[in-house]
Amino acid sequence: MTDQTKAPCKRIVIVGGGFAGLELAKHLKDKEVEVVLVDRHNYHTFQPLLYQVATGALEAETIAFPIRRIFQNHKNLNFRLANVLKVISDRKVIETTIGEIPYDYLVLATGAATNFFGDKQLEHFTMGMKSVPEALNVRSMILQSLETAVIEQDPVEKEELMTFVIVGGGPTGVELAGALAEFKNHILKKDYPSLNPEEMRVFIVESKPRVLGVMSEEASAKAKEYLEKLSVITYNSVRVKSFDGESLLINNGEVIKTRNVLWAAGVAGEFPEGISADKIVSGNRIETDKYNRIKGYTDVFAIGDVAAVITPGTPAGHPGVAQVAMQQGQQLAKNLLAIIKGKEPAPFKYNDKGSMATIGKNKAVADIGKFKTQGFRAWVLWCFVHLFSLIGTRNKIVVFLGWIGKYFSYDGATRIIIRPFSRELMREDTAAK
Amino acid sequence: MTDQTKAPCKRIVIVGGGFAGLELAKHLKDKEVEVVLVDRHNYHTFQPLLYQVATGALEAETIAFPIRRIFQNHKNLNFRLANVLKVISDRKVIETTIGEIPYDYLVLATGAATNFFGDKQLEHFTMGMKSVPEALNVRSMILQSLETAVIEQDPVEKEELMTFVIVGGGPTGVELAGALAEFKNHILKKDYPSLNPEEMRVFIVESKPRVLGVMSEEASAKAKEYLEKLSVITYNSVRVKSFDGESLLINNGEVIKTRNVLWAAGVAGEFPEGISADKIVSGNRIETDKYNRIKGYTDVFAIGDVAAVITPGTPAGHPGVAQVAMQQGQQLAKNLLAIIKGKEPAPFKYNDKGSMATIGKNKAVADIGKFKTQGFRAWVLWCFVHLFSLIGTRNKIVVFLGWIGKYFSYDGATRIIIRPFSRELMREDTAAK
Repeated sequence: MTDQTKAPCKRIVIVGGGFAGLELAKHLKDKEVEVVLVDRHNYHTFQPLLYQVATGALEAETIAFPIRRIFQNHKNLNFRLANVLKVISDRKVIETTIGEIPYDYLVLATGAATNFFGDKQLEHFTMGMKSVPEALNVRSMILQSLETAVIEQDPVEKEELMTFVIVGGGPTGVELAGALAEFKNHILKKDYPSLNPEEMRVFIVESKPRVLGVMSEEASAKAKEYLEKLSVITYNSVRVKSFDGESLLINNGEVIKTRNVLWAAGVAGEFPEGISADKIVSGNRIETDKYNRIKGYTDVFAIGDVAAVITPGTPAGHPGVAQVAMQQGQQLAKNLLAIIKGKEPAPFKYNDKGSMATIGKNKAVADIGKFKTQGFRAWVLWCFVHLFSLIGTRNKIVVFLGWIGKYFSYDGATRIIIRPFSRELMREDTAAK
Repeated sequence: MTDQTKAPCKRIVIVGGGFAGLELAKHLKDKEVEVVLVDRHNYHTFQPLLYQVATGALEAETIAFPIRRIFQNHKNLNFRLANVLKVISDRKVIETTIGEIPYDYLVLATGAATNFFGDKQLEHFTMGMKSVPEALNVRSMILQSLETAVIEQDPVEKEELMTFVIVGGGPTGVELAGALAEFKNHILKKDYPSLNPEEMRVFIVESKPRVLGVMSEEASAKAKEYLEKLSVITYNSVRVKSFDGESLLINNGEVIKTRNVLWAAGVAGEFPEGISADKIVSGNRIETDKYNRIKGYTDVFAIGDVAAVITPGTPAGHPGVAQVAMQQGQQLAKNLLAIIKGKEPAPFKYNDKGSMATIGKNKAVADIGKFKTQGFRAWVLWCFVHLFSLIGTRNKIVVFLGWIGKYFSYDGATRIIIRPFSRELMREDTAAK
């Protein structure tokens, strides 16, 4: 990394150090370009394992990698810790909390945030889990609810405290529900002997007819079976109407009394001001052409969850998953270098390597093209794929050891409330992100 | 652990899960008493390694152990997450944030907090480091200052951002200064290539004529030599007069321009209301007899940093270190059981096993009785003593791996700003502790 400006080089500014931005930056190493990577965090978040931080199985730091450390040997890259406020494309600058940054090529890799579909009450009373601080808030909330349940005399309030509802039955929702159910089945009686594990309840509320709707029917069916085995109560084909902090109202008229609602029911693209409204498509994503160039712009691109590459073959863009983000980052690196040299860029083509979700120990599902597997085999596969995707040898070892320990005892070691959770403080924290 | 009350047993309420409270509770396992352990955190903090969390060498969770997990098999112990507000000894109850808790015997093991000697400006602008949230705030502050220095154009402001002053040259101050100096010497050029390591400065300001004043002259001299080798600038026999956020005024008239002042210049006992003012001695500690019984009370005891066992042989009590706390906890466990059985308690007698401090890699000092050692040997000893004091196999392994990695590369892996630091937010967080 260097902070000196090399005059003759084109400057590529990347906003966001998620999977997409990171891959793009890595593939520009030692090339004849100047790269500026801007992120509001000084670390990359390995989002697929956030639920393990939230449920006290992993340390926050093992899934957060300092960006400066990742790019220690990238001499043509500068990192900037800042929030990007606005794209001013006619002047070719972005406005940030640390001033303006000029670009020759701009890449928005800003990802997606939790989507509450405009419902302010849901946004206030439920908890998203898209960042490390949010995952730590979820962890604190779970542990604080149980601590309060221990001393609660009123049976109704106690039930509310011990009821956990996950809205959304996609991979995040299913993995979180599974982890909470294992907590209930294996940890609760050891840590909280005065609480009856039977009284802790975990729900999934999913609007589609099946959980893991993006995966095969086989995977969905098996996931449902696993969830039942772990005594997770799954509601399908229903929607949450409202939640006031104590009563979750479902559109079939049912009410679940709970204090703990985790919102994993959808995401929406998140990006700075200044992108023409007519480029925004469903899911608040930015429409791009097949080269990930934002339609109507010549030198502004979007990759990852925030981008929707809309072509005749992909009328709704690609799924918002790490694989797409990484492949787009890699492809755009090649394309930007080609464009700079006056060559033809190549269109993005998604190579779907399959998808996986883990529900609990030995309980996972995997669809790898036509090959589908479940149970122990899928679980081992899931562990290895995630382990090898982690950045840094030490993180790999620490996470591996944690999983080994947990395999035999179910007992993660990180059930600590680093900062007490309160709705007021939480809002400030996440605002400060 | 159980939350059922066993009527015939005496109830011992322990306030604080630090070294003293933990040892006491452990030694009451399976005894004919009911134990209630109350702490405002749900974890025990291994304070000797807080400085490594603050400097990004260790994950917060590796030095914080969930109290419920420690006591999983203690059937006669209940944990309560609460702040203790007041001791009401005539009714034999404590008032807490979760209601009143009655006791037969009460033990205050509430430890010590940073002592700003009543100076509100110092308290506002400098940072203490007695808890995990505080250590994470220090980590965020260090990293945020460097991120800001990268983009700072004004040389004076840049110098302020890159100047770190540690007030207090005791073990905490020396260890923190050493860790910051190693950061400066080994990490800075890799992570922040645009910053000149020469421009990062680390100061210690100590009121006594030598650093590590509690250790031997030999240890002090060697520590001073190590600090010089690491290019830490040490001021002795001077005091801080004031700090307004930018200028640190010393009583020799000198001013150090800095944004980063870490306060390790003393601690003061911290305890709930309700203890007679005439029992409070120097350092805001509670005076006890040789059985750790608070003078004037029959069934209220104090152990650890908050207690001063004042006898003819120890006119100022014992030093506020982990060893004293642990030995008092162990002794008091025996004494309480004796007292309950109507037997004679035994007086506390401190067995000083020596003291150690580490300044950097291969640079430590140790006084073990008459045996004094420095350098590599002391450093290995320091590592092993701290490693074996950690609770939990996994934590031992994770910390050990971290140290191994750091030994070869100096490069810890946890330089992440989990929550951005701001004075305003910090105050709320620490208040919420």
